[in-house]
Amino acid sequence: MGGVEPIATEVAWQGKVFSAGVQRFRTARGAEVTRDKVWHPGAVGILAIDGEHVWLTRQPREAAGLAESLEIPAGKRDVEGEAPLQTAKRELAEEIGKRAGSWEELEIFYTSPGFSDERVWLYLARELTDDGDAHPDADEEIEVVAWPLGRLREAIAECEDSKSLIALLWLELAREHGTL
Amino acid sequence: MGGVEPIATEVAWQGKVFSAGVQRFRTARGAEVTRDKVWHPGAVGILAIDGEHVWLTRQPREAAGLAESLEIPAGKRDVEGEAPLQTAKRELAEEIGKRAGSWEELEIFYTSPGFSDERVWLYLARELTDDGDAHPDADEEIEVVAWPLGRLREAIAECEDSKSLIALLWLELAREHGTL
Repeated sequence: MGGVEPIATEVAWQGKVFSAGVQRFRTARGAEVTRDKVWHPGAVGILAIDGEHVWLTRQPREAAGLAESLEIPAGKRDVEGEAPLQTAKRELAEEIGKRAGSWEELEIFYTSPGFSDERVWLYLARELTDDGDAHPDADEEIEVVAWPLGRLREAIAECEDSKSLIALLWLELAREHGTL
Repeated sequence: MGGVEPIATEVAWQGKVFSAGVQRFRTARGAEVTRDKVWHPGAVGILAIDGEHVWLTRQPREAAGLAESLEIPAGKRDVEGEAPLQTAKRELAEEIGKRAGSWEELEIFYTSPGFSDERVWLYLARELTDDGDAHPDADEEIEVVAWPLGRLREAIAECEDSKSLIALLWLELAREHGTL
């Protein structure tokens, strides 16, 4: 297996959300390679379903040039020391005002491992109830969308976000298999 | 819909693969928001199947700290003016030494639209034949893997890369539906 411990690291820019720069590595064959890299704290995504709906959001994604992006509830792991599941519970309350009685880890994946260390922890959240304590972020322009499960293919067709596509394709497959 | 035309742009670092910096936007409600951003040329991914196998690769992904990553054939859109389908044809030859007689666009999505404009054009490639002219990049430590279609779930379980998970989940769904 190739060595993935860097032999040199240069963080060239430190943003509020991520850092960017260059790392050098020695490959298993002994060659040196250089990689542009983003250091990112990671994120969580929540596939939140009840018997009739999957709970989605629509929000602008300015960095991608999208006035509206249909996505699952999600958020960055930007609270020091907070476990991913805890972040997921917080984001579900903040974004759609719900708690879940059942949580299950579905997948952990890298959004773009060629240049970024951003990982997404994807959870299935069920037994949803309204969270009376939730105070959705007034600052965020997030529309909550209760999407009918019977129209899942249309959500997949509209969605342009990788973590949400993974969640929705997983859900359609689980429904085909009769496990959800 | 919110405005996604930036009112200010500061490219703070220019790498070989991507650039990073900050953009400011005015939202539909008139507020100003600042976004850390990666400018990325985009990428292609290829779901290449014959009657028995899906063609995958295993390679180190140093930026993500992965000694091995199981993925679909893929590559950056790093040739000026090259259409995504052309890039996909080139990458299929370079990475696994195949041509395809049939190409179909499956999805276009953003890998992480909260901070990056990287888009992936995902194609289905069929009617595969060996490309006698292909000269796989000697520099790249890429192992070609002919993965049996009957063991698709195991590939999904091993895979940690978003574009490949989307492709493999899509494939399993198509097989469930009997359309592939």
